[in-house]
Amino acid sequence: MRQEDPVATSAEADAMRRAVALSARALGATAPNPVVGCVILDAAGRVAGEGWHQRAGGPHAEVHALLAAGERARGGTALVTLEPCNHTGRTGPCAQALIEAGVARVVYAVADPSPVASGGARTLRDAGLDVAGGLLADEAAAVNTAWLTSVRRGRPHVRWKYAATLDGRIAAADGSSRWITSSEARADVHRLRAEADAVVVGSGTLLADDPHLAVRGIDGVTQPLRVVVDTRARTTAGARVLDDAAPTLIAVGEDADTAHLAGVDVVRLPYAPQGRGIDVAALLAELLARGVRAVLLEGGPTLAGAFVAAGYVDAVTAYLAPALLGAGPAALDGGGISTIAQALRLDVTGVDRLGPDLRLTAVPVAAAAAVVSAAAPADVPTAPQES
Amino acid sequence: MRQEDPVATSAEADAMRRAVALSARALGATAPNPVVGCVILDAAGRVAGEGWHQRAGGPHAEVHALLAAGERARGGTALVTLEPCNHTGRTGPCAQALIEAGVARVVYAVADPSPVASGGARTLRDAGLDVAGGLLADEAAAVNTAWLTSVRRGRPHVRWKYAATLDGRIAAADGSSRWITSSEARADVHRLRAEADAVVVGSGTLLADDPHLAVRGIDGVTQPLRVVVDTRARTTAGARVLDDAAPTLIAVGEDADTAHLAGVDVVRLPYAPQGRGIDVAALLAELLARGVRAVLLEGGPTLAGAFVAAGYVDAVTAYLAPALLGAGPAALDGGGISTIAQALRLDVTGVDRLGPDLRLTAVPVAAAAAVVSAAAPADVPTAPQES
Repeated sequence: MRQEDPVATSAEADAMRRAVALSARALGATAPNPVVGCVILDAAGRVAGEGWHQRAGGPHAEVHALLAAGERARGGTALVTLEPCNHTGRTGPCAQALIEAGVARVVYAVADPSPVASGGARTLRDAGLDVAGGLLADEAAAVNTAWLTSVRRGRPHVRWKYAATLDGRIAAADGSSRWITSSEARADVHRLRAEADAVVVGSGTLLADDPHLAVRGIDGVTQPLRVVVDTRARTTAGARVLDDAAPTLIAVGEDADTAHLAGVDVVRLPYAPQGRGIDVAALLAELLARGVRAVLLEGGPTLAGAFVAAGYVDAVTAYLAPALLGAGPAALDGGGISTIAQALRLDVTGVDRLGPDLRLTAVPVAAAAAVVSAAAPADVPTAPQES
Repeated sequence: MRQEDPVATSAEADAMRRAVALSARALGATAPNPVVGCVILDAAGRVAGEGWHQRAGGPHAEVHALLAAGERARGGTALVTLEPCNHTGRTGPCAQALIEAGVARVVYAVADPSPVASGGARTLRDAGLDVAGGLLADEAAAVNTAWLTSVRRGRPHVRWKYAATLDGRIAAADGSSRWITSSEARADVHRLRAEADAVVVGSGTLLADDPHLAVRGIDGVTQPLRVVVDTRARTTAGARVLDDAAPTLIAVGEDADTAHLAGVDVVRLPYAPQGRGIDVAALLAELLARGVRAVLLEGGPTLAGAFVAAGYVDAVTAYLAPALLGAGPAALDGGGISTIAQALRLDVTGVDRLGPDLRLTAVPVAAAAAVVSAAAPADVPTAPQES
């Protein structure tokens, strides 16, 4: 149920568009918080200040923007991509800051679905401000998809990324896979990692490729948590993923022998009710508790199959190399699908050329609707959020 | 080695563009001949007539266009997508017809690479006409790719078509595959069949899906030859492919028992030097001898693997459904590729959305250059051509 766009001036719509763009700058850096952008217009409708929430624990978008606007905020309008918060966490409530700055009108895009922080709109109205919600709600929600999903579903948002040939293979018959895709596609993976809070791989991928999983080539990035799903604790102390480029978590089975992983952050998780390996629901709960909102699942095929089977794939980014192998492992192995009617159907949301390769982005057909409805308040279990 | 565009007026370029479009109308209907389009401009540069080669045995493009132009051809210019033929087959040589009509200038796109028919340009020059070649050669050669390939390589052009999920599977674990792709994508397959001279499947596909393989939904189509590669003659007399909607050829192994296929067009072919099944080179030679220039290979994975291994895939059309299966057969099985450096690399020549699906067209990297150079005359073994 999408909210109708409120009555807004074109200057307000432009300012909201700018606020949405500002919010996207901090993707991957604000967890467990959402990304938020804010633009302040003065009483005459001119841009007086702008800001965005840059990192958890730092000032909220509204505070940055009010600081930039100074006295020009008085009698003006604040455009915010998310309903201003109403509670005091590590920073004071933004609703109060807007009231104290003398702002006359507040327009937000997406209503805050988290009970802890919501109610900002009512507080503002009670203080006599003109308040409207829903302006560019879809655009703002799209940028905040991971956080909104985590609030609605009580688990992190999961994007499954894979790189395969046109015939769906992620490696040749001899296991070689460097490189299936081009340098352009591989650089784009670093952007995806930078926007995620955690990057997850299975132990099969770790043992086959010894990946590093940290972000390279992007300045000032907040490194994601590197997570290895390693049921039998086969990760060795010399694995590249255990260097100090980024934090790393090894998720092992309850009874795994981890003596060789002294000093490493290890979490023991229960086994899946059916099938091999640890319970991916328990893994996501652990990650949520650690503040992770956006997970980038980088494989391999078996782990991806476990996520598909559990219904935990919220988005797919496929890098398709125009090449044929005719043998070698498939991108996805498992998922509990036995006949064509059970296929996990997706909506393609983007097709782009990256060098010689194609990047496809898609979301499960059922989930496509959920992102939009997340723009409206929902009475659902919520994830903890810091302020 | 692409020829440079000759000096041509913009009216001539427009007319050649029209001639190329006309030539494409007959794709799938002219084998063993090429597709050819022709536009005649009168002495003042106005369009006086146009035509295209509509079917083997019928008048050539130039004859159609000259007939339409009548006396206005005298002193005019003929734009032809292929160098006018010089020999008398079922119809007279076009070079002579142009001379007799009093045409003053002939501009062609692609030089005729077949020794039997070539020499038309010289004949025209010897008769005092102004002759130029190479105008829009790439565009014209692209439409004639199948025929040019058959002349250059001495075997039919092969386009491999498959429909798969994003994870590269052509059926679910239980073998079900109806339907992976949308009705829009399936309609497009009928267009591909209409443009081909033969549609080829393996017996595995035949037994699993009992496909019909004829073209449906396109008026006035020349039905392609339906070909089943059926080494052990497992096709039953009741197979849909044996109805009278189109001609059908069953290619069996030398010693196959074909008693149950009385009245069916059966050809016995030698076994492949290595591996299972019949020799695909022998199959293509048989099809070439039957006048086939454009083969649409529709699978299955094993047969496609044999074609890839032999280096006989000239183009790929992949229909990718945005769906995941996680189990089931891959689109390509075999091909003799064991490590990533041996991957068959392709150049993507087109990406289109068909309903919810994607259509990717691609050509092997090595072959991408060959199509362009085919626009220039080449001293290569040639395929028989009727006129």
